Amino acid sequence: MDKTEWKILKEIADLEQVPQGAYNFRLNGAGDGRQSTANIEIASKADKPGIDIIIKPGTKKESVHIPVVLSQSGLKDVVYNDFYVGEGADVDIVAGCGIHNTGCETSQHDGIHVFHVGKNAKVRYYERHYGEGPGTGENILNPRTEVYLEEGASITMEMTQIRGVDSTIRDTVVVVGPGAECIINEKLLTDGVQSAESNVELILDGADANGRVISRSVARGTSRQVFQPCVTGKAKCFGHVQCDSIIMDDAKIKSIPALDAQSVDAQLIHEAAIGRIAGDQILKLMTLGLTEQEAEEKILEGFLN
Amino acid sequence: MDKTEWKILKEIADLEQVPQGAYNFRLNGAGDGRQSTANIEIASKADKPGIDIIIKPGTKKESVHIPVVLSQSGLKDVVYNDFYVGEGADVDIVAGCGIHNTGCETSQHDGIHVFHVGKNAKVRYYERHYGEGPGTGENILNPRTEVYLEEGASITMEMTQIRGVDSTIRDTVVVVGPGAECIINEKLLTDGVQSAESNVELILDGADANGRVISRSVARGTSRQVFQPCVTGKAKCFGHVQCDSIIMDDAKIKSIPALDAQSVDAQLIHEAAIGRIAGDQILKLMTLGLTEQEAEEKILEGFLN
Repeated sequence: MDKTEWKILKEIADLEQVPQGAYNFRLNGAGDGRQSTANIEIASKADKPGIDIIIKPGTKKESVHIPVVLSQSGLKDVVYNDFYVGEGADVDIVAGCGIHNTGCETSQHDGIHVFHVGKNAKVRYYERHYGEGPGTGENILNPRTEVYLEEGASITMEMTQIRGVDSTIRDTVVVVGPGAECIINEKLLTDGVQSAESNVELILDGADANGRVISRSVARGTSRQVFQPCVTGKAKCFGHVQCDSIIMDDAKIKSIPALDAQSVDAQLIHEAAIGRIAGDQILKLMTLGLTEQEAEEKILEGFLN
Repeated sequence: MDKTEWKILKEIADLEQVPQGAYNFRLNGAGDGRQSTANIEIASKADKPGIDIIIKPGTKKESVHIPVVLSQSGLKDVVYNDFYVGEGADVDIVAGCGIHNTGCETSQHDGIHVFHVGKNAKVRYYERHYGEGPGTGENILNPRTEVYLEEGASITMEMTQIRGVDSTIRDTVVVVGPGAECIINEKLLTDGVQSAESNVELILDGADANGRVISRSVARGTSRQVFQPCVTGKAKCFGHVQCDSIIMDDAKIKSIPALDAQSVDAQLIHEAAIGRIAGDQILKLMTLGLTEQEAEEKILEGFLN
């Protein structure tokens, strides 16, 4: 990877050098370095682009980094990554995709991730999406993430689209087994003529399944956002969805959540709010010496972090 | 009207005798008494079943009752009622439909109501739906309600489905003009194998338009409910939707609200919750001497009122 590519790695995976533990770097549609460990095996798929990540039962305090960088304009990259997290494991998985587009052609990465999380295993998943570049070509990212949580398993998903992504359709499906838990923190910023659509389907499919979706977004310019989180309760379970959006300039935001209680013991809650930044918040910061624009940035930063 | 029919009138319109003011009674698909007043004219439509209700500008503290009763099993009644509420008027409109079905055939009433509410006029609209009868025939009510609020106008809509309605699809569309306000209080109870679908579309289409939907429902037995409230903000406006549902037995409830912010100055909020009655609430009432069933009824009554 060159300097530009490392800069992108820093943005999406907070990496300044090759990480400790298992990793697989993907650059412009091909592998660019891989390391398995005693407990985490990374193997190429035989039938299609992508990798299998097999984490042994009981693996603790280990991490896997699988960032993707596209620096070649006009590339369309599709990749299938399957994660098998063994019983009782406790791991960090850092994914993410960054595009540096210098040309006038569309660069696109579609990552299809499937997680099989074994009994009582614990996963923290980080996914950051970012686009940049002086070119006029569009940056498109369409991730699909499927998660299957066995009994007592848990996953925390931090999914962030920082900036520079012209178009995204995000599909996330999580099936939560008995006593399992899923927490999704989604953060999304769009600007200019960008568009973002996020569909989250959370299926609480076992006694004491627990699910939470916290989505925060900011839409600027003439960008468009559509959110469709759906929580289905099939057993004694608890589900909570919270979507908060800040709308600016001439942006448009739609939020269409769904609660589907299929069991008398399902307890499902949803809250959504769309609004602009409160004027008095800006005024307050301006009296502290910030310009209006600085105040606005400060508020957005706080809202998204 | 006979005794059974008057009993239904009492349920749906709280009437024990012919009301004061303007009224139009509809019984088994035909007129059954009408009265216009100096300020409120009720006229039959020439081209289709239904009436025009024309309320003079400035009419104050008057009421219109237009209840519908079906006591003949197997009747399908469709009626079109248009309301023209003049500028600055301030009136109560009491609608509602009750079915007494003694037979084995389906009784159905579809009421299509359109309200044109003039500048600064104020309407309180009450609509109660009820079904009963020893027969095996189904009771179906599919109301469609459209409301157009001119500048500064307001409407409060109390829409209640008490019980005994086997199947209902409720469509409500309200377009709120500048400085106008719409408040919808919807209450719905289903039991047995009943099904209810409620679609509310609230379009805030002018500066300082204000809209609020408060929906409360109880689903018992194996009944099914689907709620789809949608609030669209097209200007500087405030919209708030709150859906709370109690689920019991083997019932199923879906809530799919939508917020659509098309203006940076639109402030839209949604909250929804589906859950069963809290066990400690029942216990508390039982320590006061109520049986479990009485405690449950008490809680549902409080929730729906």
